[in-house]
Amino acid sequence: MFDKFHEECGVVGVYGHPEAATLAYLSLYALQHRGQESAGIVASNGEALISHRGMGHVADIFQYDILARLRGHLAIGHNRYSTSGSTVLKNCQPFVVSWAHGALAIAHNGNLVNADELRAKLEARGAIFQSTVDSEVIVHLIARSAETTLLERIIDALSQVRGAYSLVFMTEDRVIAARDPAGFRPLVLGRVGDAVVIASETCALDLVDARLEREIDPGEIVIVSERGVDSVRPFPASESHHCVFEYVYFARPDSEVFGRNVYEARKELGRQLARESGVPADIVIPVPDSGLPAAIGYAEEAGLPFEMGLIRNHYVGRTFIEPSSSIRNFGVKVKLNALREVLAGKRVIVVDDSIVRGTTSRKLVHMIRQAGAREVHVRISSPPTTHPCFYGIDTPTREELIASSHGVGDIQQYLGADSLAYLSLAGLYTFAGGRRAGFCDACFTGRYPIAPPVEVPVRQFQLFEARER
Amino acid sequence: MFDKFHEECGVVGVYGHPEAATLAYLSLYALQHRGQESAGIVASNGEALISHRGMGHVADIFQYDILARLRGHLAIGHNRYSTSGSTVLKNCQPFVVSWAHGALAIAHNGNLVNADELRAKLEARGAIFQSTVDSEVIVHLIARSAETTLLERIIDALSQVRGAYSLVFMTEDRVIAARDPAGFRPLVLGRVGDAVVIASETCALDLVDARLEREIDPGEIVIVSERGVDSVRPFPASESHHCVFEYVYFARPDSEVFGRNVYEARKELGRQLARESGVPADIVIPVPDSGLPAAIGYAEEAGLPFEMGLIRNHYVGRTFIEPSSSIRNFGVKVKLNALREVLAGKRVIVVDDSIVRGTTSRKLVHMIRQAGAREVHVRISSPPTTHPCFYGIDTPTREELIASSHGVGDIQQYLGADSLAYLSLAGLYTFAGGRRAGFCDACFTGRYPIAPPVEVPVRQFQLFEARER
Amino acid sequence: MFDKFHEECGVVGVYGHPEAATLAYLSLYALQHRGQESAGIVASNGEALISHRGMGHVADIFQYDILARLRGHLAIGHNRYSTSGSTVLKNCQPFVVSWAHGALAIAHNGNLVNADELRAKLEARGAIFQSTVDSEVIVHLIARSAETTLLERIIDALSQVRGAYSLVFMTEDRVIAARDPAGFRPLVLGRVGDAVVIASETCALDLVDARLEREIDPGEIVIVSERGVDSVRPFPASESHHCVFEYVYFARPDSEVFGRNVYEARKELGRQLARESGVPADIVIPVPDSGLPAAIGYAEEAGLPFEMGLIRNHYVGRTFIEPSSSIRNFGVKVKLNALREVLAGKRVIVVDDSIVRGTTSRKLVHMIRQAGAREVHVRISSPPTTHPCFYGIDTPTREELIASSHGVGDIQQYLGADSLAYLSLAGLYTFAGGRRAGFCDACFTGRYPIAPPVEVPVRQFQLFEARER
Amino acid sequence: MFDKFHEECGVVGVYGHPEAATLAYLSLYALQHRGQESAGIVASNGEALISHRGMGHVADIFQYDILARLRGHLAIGHNRYSTSGSTVLKNCQPFVVSWAHGALAIAHNGNLVNADELRAKLEARGAIFQSTVDSEVIVHLIARSAETTLLERIIDALSQVRGAYSLVFMTEDRVIAARDPAGFRPLVLGRVGDAVVIASETCALDLVDARLEREIDPGEIVIVSERGVDSVRPFPASESHHCVFEYVYFARPDSEVFGRNVYEARKELGRQLARESGVPADIVIPVPDSGLPAAIGYAEEAGLPFEMGLIRNHYVGRTFIEPSSSIRNFGVKVKLNALREVLAGKRVIVVDDSIVRGTTSRKLVHMIRQAGAREVHVRISSPPTTHPCFYGIDTPTREELIASSHGVGDIQQYLGADSLAYLSLAGLYTFAGGRRAGFCDACFTGRYPIAPPVEVPVRQFQLFEARER
Repeated sequence: MFDKFHEECGVVGVYGHPEAATLAYLSLYALQHRGQESAGIVASNGEALISHRGMGHVADIFQYDILARLRGHLAIGHNRYSTSGSTVLKNCQPFVVSWAHGALAIAHNGNLVNADELRAKLEARGAIFQSTVDSEVIVHLIARSAETTLLERIIDALSQVRGAYSLVFMTEDRVIAARDPAGFRPLVLGRVGDAVVIASETCALDLVDARLEREIDPGEIVIVSERGVDSVRPFPASESHHCVFEYVYFARPDSEVFGRNVYEARKELGRQLARESGVPADIVIPVPDSGLPAAIGYAEEAGLPFEMGLIRNHYVGRTFIEPSSSIRNFGVKVKLNALREVLAGKRVIVVDDSIVRGTTSRKLVHMIRQAGAREVHVRISSPPTTHPCFYGIDTPTREELIASSHGVGDIQQYLGADSLAYLSLAGLYTFAGGRRAGFCDACFTGRYPIAPPVEVPVRQFQLFEARER
Repeated sequence: MFDKFHEECGVVGVYGHPEAATLAYLSLYALQHRGQESAGIVASNGEALISHRGMGHVADIFQYDILARLRGHLAIGHNRYSTSGSTVLKNCQPFVVSWAHGALAIAHNGNLVNADELRAKLEARGAIFQSTVDSEVIVHLIARSAETTLLERIIDALSQVRGAYSLVFMTEDRVIAARDPAGFRPLVLGRVGDAVVIASETCALDLVDARLEREIDPGEIVIVSERGVDSVRPFPASESHHCVFEYVYFARPDSEVFGRNVYEARKELGRQLARESGVPADIVIPVPDSGLPAAIGYAEEAGLPFEMGLIRNHYVGRTFIEPSSSIRNFGVKVKLNALREVLAGKRVIVVDDSIVRGTTSRKLVHMIRQAGAREVHVRISSPPTTHPCFYGIDTPTREELIASSHGVGDIQQYLGADSLAYLSLAGLYTFAGGRRAGFCDACFTGRYPIAPPVEVPVRQFQLFEARER
Repeated sequence: MFDKFHEECGVVGVYGHPEAATLAYLSLYALQHRGQESAGIVASNGEALISHRGMGHVADIFQYDILARLRGHLAIGHNRYSTSGSTVLKNCQPFVVSWAHGALAIAHNGNLVNADELRAKLEARGAIFQSTVDSEVIVHLIARSAETTLLERIIDALSQVRGAYSLVFMTEDRVIAARDPAGFRPLVLGRVGDAVVIASETCALDLVDARLEREIDPGEIVIVSERGVDSVRPFPASESHHCVFEYVYFARPDSEVFGRNVYEARKELGRQLARESGVPADIVIPVPDSGLPAAIGYAEEAGLPFEMGLIRNHYVGRTFIEPSSSIRNFGVKVKLNALREVLAGKRVIVVDDSIVRGTTSRKLVHMIRQAGAREVHVRISSPPTTHPCFYGIDTPTREELIASSHGVGDIQQYLGADSLAYLSLAGLYTFAGGRRAGFCDACFTGRYPIAPPVEVPVRQFQLFEARER
Repeated sequence: MFDKFHEECGVVGVYGHPEAATLAYLSLYALQHRGQESAGIVASNGEALISHRGMGHVADIFQYDILARLRGHLAIGHNRYSTSGSTVLKNCQPFVVSWAHGALAIAHNGNLVNADELRAKLEARGAIFQSTVDSEVIVHLIARSAETTLLERIIDALSQVRGAYSLVFMTEDRVIAARDPAGFRPLVLGRVGDAVVIASETCALDLVDARLEREIDPGEIVIVSERGVDSVRPFPASESHHCVFEYVYFARPDSEVFGRNVYEARKELGRQLARESGVPADIVIPVPDSGLPAAIGYAEEAGLPFEMGLIRNHYVGRTFIEPSSSIRNFGVKVKLNALREVLAGKRVIVVDDSIVRGTTSRKLVHMIRQAGAREVHVRISSPPTTHPCFYGIDTPTREELIASSHGVGDIQQYLGADSLAYLSLAGLYTFAGGRRAGFCDACFTGRYPIAPPVEVPVRQFQLFEARER
């Protein structure tokens, strides 16, 4: 039903570099953990937009000849992950349209909670839609605004939407970035020489040798043009709701997000976890790679040896063929293998960042035990994930989240672990000096800062396109 | 500039067949002469639309697995040819959108003369555009109409457009066909069993074993649904302007177009040409394949032997690589080779349907002479092409049409022919019993039944997309 | 079983042109009727060989970048058609190996009747094989020869093989062509400037603007090197057995084959057919395109109108998807459509070049009758095809050839024709002044000039490779 | 020159499983670190071989439909890495031929030092070669052997070759594995149910749930057939020379190689490194992922905190486009990013497994320093790599190995490190209880157990094939 909410994205904007599209490409390359199913870049030489989008990995979509054709000193880019079956080229971003005042491209990270409602209103007033992405709603609002300038129209449009957005717009001669007043998703601004680079995370700036200048503020709109970097803050001051899950799992550990380094935050989560729920054991192992920093922190705090008891296959791709019934249960084994020499006879603490459905964790506990572990203690460096996200993280429905309907004891039994402990909600914020204010933790608490959309089956979303090839 | 006018298309609609998409595929297969650069099919099972579009030949775009996924008992299809460089996937049809009342797909053959004007008006009222095809204008007009039912909205929209259109629409549960009041382009309705098939030409009906029932009348709108076939004629009676060039060149010879067989019409053009401009000669040869029926008619009327003096390479594809400068002038030789044994020492009459720029004809005359012909007499089975078409035939601009600026004598000299004769305008209509009324011959006369658009450089058309692959 | 015999090919060799590979490419382009399933080119700059081979059409295999890499002033090429399911890249030619004296490439048109026998002997002496093509046998014989020079080794090898071969070899610095003593398949030599071009048919020379110098003689070996063109005739004089089926069907009509133009020969077959088996009728129509010249000849001789009663779809590709059972019997309709306006009420003579299985002819007769023909008289411009070819034409087994087990009366009944007549064997040779000597007509008579191979199921041919992509 | 020596491979053989090809596919999946440039599988149903090979990653080459066609209960597979530019499909393995006794497939890991010599001898006796892989030499020797049975012929062939080989053969009904008498490369045998699985490393057995039975012994030949598993040891007892570099870098850490777990061995290398060359520091960081186990061991032994100071981008593919000159020096940054928060102000020990050219290490040191490290101490968990490998590890020539011409002091200066220390040769063997006997460490010492080939430019290796697509 609400497939369209389940997507994660990275965005980038570049202004003032002779190879703007190549900088955008490199930035998307660094942001692939935010979306590896499709990617697109739109470039402009100041007069006309040229775009290329495709399904798959950034490096497969943009060959040398494609980048060479994306000429110009402005570019914006987007990559996207979606679990919905309807991942089709027409839903890929950046979304590009022509309207009364020229061409407009838009790339969006986040999700609007009133997109359906706005869409229904727009359609009632004669709008036609070609995709199911929120960006198309925003573009319609801009095009129909009674305001005069593009900036005023954007402000008018954004004042009508509710939810999470880190947006990058491009016209023939300007790049405009906007972030929702709650600042759900990250967005930073850096510079390399005279060029301005805007990106979801600082790791993108690092790759293109841009130095971080600052975050785009929640509620801020930044306009980059010949005149330089202008900024407006048209919306009334509001409380921040930075996504705490960016620290727990989503962002790259080498990024600085919401002013803090992710790796150090994760290590702190691990340390606090050790303090809260220590257990006698011989070794601490991570579930690679996401559990690695927390496991290091846990081992450090607990004074236990840190080991790589699970080895990751680095060549796992999306196209892996599940063998037929006679060769079963490959799932997690294709990605991870347990190291008997490390685990046999040991009391093992295995650290992971979160548990979603529980099926993978259950297989891992089994695998570790098969490798000879005497005890398996599962430690999770965040509280139980009980609620879906409506602001841009791809989480399953409540029904599929094991912690939404089961207590810790039940989950431990399901996993087959000797013990299971989650980080406490209070403990989660140790990394922030104990201050919870300014964060969104709805996935752990159900306290949604902005009311999630009412689930209404919407007829017109049944429009699919066979996957282009 | 007016690239968007230069395109040719074929359309098809199917209702009431369990494999509607496959019938649409076969019909497009038969209509490839109308457009071989892109093709698309949208199918519906009564509840949701699913579409697939691609660049290239019909048989390359629709593999077995794709057709299998286009399930449903309704389908419409489109194929398209365009000389403009901007042939991109987003301009491919059928064009599919969601609007207030569900999903709507549209396939269009023809060109509107007031599309830019309407588009500018729509954009001024907040519409956004994602392509440069006329169909998008029509869909906006439908979506914004103040009328209630879809049919009334379509009537409202079509009452605002001027130009040529043979249209096929599809919603979740209906196929609707419409033809402009002048009937510029063909559109026929047939039946195979209980299923209804609508197509640009009867050759499509033949391939799917459908029997021709009738033409869709100029100005008629046909609705095919569970209720059967309904018809309305909402527009005031108007003069017909059937495109005479469909007979001269464009339609397939085995089609019946505007109530007449094309092959027989072309033979009659050849016969009349012989009557008008006979010349002593030894043999009559066609420029294959388009000049073949006229050459047979000419030879018959002139009592001269018909020969295949030019042999066509049947494996010519669009991807032919022009060799570098050291191997020159391949152009026409890749397609045609002259037969010395047939031509040497002969006085040759070579029959072609029309001359556009003259460059190919010049090469052919040279080639025939090189093969030993004593005399080369060029006979064209239509009047000089002096004006571009604005109603759906891909002709170059006036500047490029050799006959718009040169007399027959000059052209003869340019071609290097011993004589050159075109068919007279009066002679052209011999095939129709001499009656010119009811036809459009603007390409030969400049008498445009509907005023062509004023050329205004429009800024927003500079929106391109790198070609998808 | 004897799949490997069922293949048709075209070959080309170029020496002394700075873009030899491009000339080879163009020549293969002109020879696609001889083989459109795979193609390959090997080029040399005098020092090293570089090759590219692929499945599909010439224009799809050789993109601009590929040709640019095939640098050098020598090149040979090959294209191939095969009905066997085992068409795989490893069977594509030219076949390239390294042996004691460097690199050797070979392209072969024709089939050897003692290839299996030689292969078995070679394997018994320790040879290993990687393909099932005859060329590999020839290369082994060359490599193992006790002779010293490459030319002597080639002579030694060819003295051991029996059957049909028009061969083109290439080393780092020489192109060598050889033709079997019976001259089954054509092979011609031409020049463009200082460059030498060797090709299966003259239509390849025409496309590259090379002038025909002469045929390579049966039994002749031609060596093209820095020294110019040398020729040896090492084999004792032998009777010629030119394939008469090249005239009937296989060669392109604009080619000169075995010293005669193919189009004129076919017209003469049609004329003689009219003389032998005239029948009262209203029109003569060809089965396009192969039956076209004979139909023109027939109509001329019979004094009947020539018409295109069957229209060919020029966009038919190999990838056409056969629709499922609910939409049956498309076979021939995808390629040809019958013209009711031409055929209705008429007594029709339909001329084709040959009948293989009879299934297609039967559908055509039915289609012509459905279009309203009053009578359908089938005329075949060759004698009944009763025997398979073992010298390089892809014919089915005897069991599948309808004329090998059925008389003309039975076949007429099967086709549903009002009358059926084949050309007589004597009549076949009218085009050659009545002289049968010098031709192979085994497919019509079973008189094989060289004994065909004994059918022995050979175990090692069961080696397949999944089709590369 | 000696490009053909520079390749790394993984091999697998499966006997007695209904989906043998799928088991082979999974095994190759687990072995991709041994070769990710091409892969192939040959299967047999007991009667005929069917093969598929391609360029690229295992998961891209074998789609579901391909695996479905590789039917049979026997299969062998191969994957390969090569730095030479001539990576072409024809050099992909398994190599499949037909010879006097049927079909034979071969997959080879390792390199022969007398391949050129044998090849020259074979060519002198009339052999032809189609690739530049050693396997083709072995097959020729088998085919030409005077022995009778296949096993005897294999023994005869292997008695003539010198060098490293872990081989898997397949005929229609048998899988045969062989390992050179020195046992340079690993090869193990396991069982899953009744099926036998042979593979380069135990991680392949783990993925298919096979339990390790034993190593194939150096000099042993194992025949798996309907009769079960037979073994012969035809070669005289010889000293073992297991490749120590498999422990240092090449094998997967979760594999057991030569009877020892790789991860534990690497940790021991790190511990010994700390004992040998400790230095006052604040943190220990690995160069991920290869330096990870040694860094853990080092940190443990040194009692220093272990940190992930370098973060790896997991989406790096081979097709990364190097940006043009205006955006320089991306090399290592695309793969790794330095973590300022971890490194700033610290004295950092960075642990890597080896240094080849030194260019990457130099960039890393610079990157770590840029991130604020106060001191950078490089520690290498193996001795200086001074000599190329001729037994199956892809190392550059001596000229390119920085340690072959520079002392440790020079290298430290080049890297810009505050200190640099390698593991001592004696220390290297700590993991094996200090016993050097039984290992090959030629890459560190130049003591080649088998004389490397004399470098002779061989003319026939100049045979290339344009890369197939």
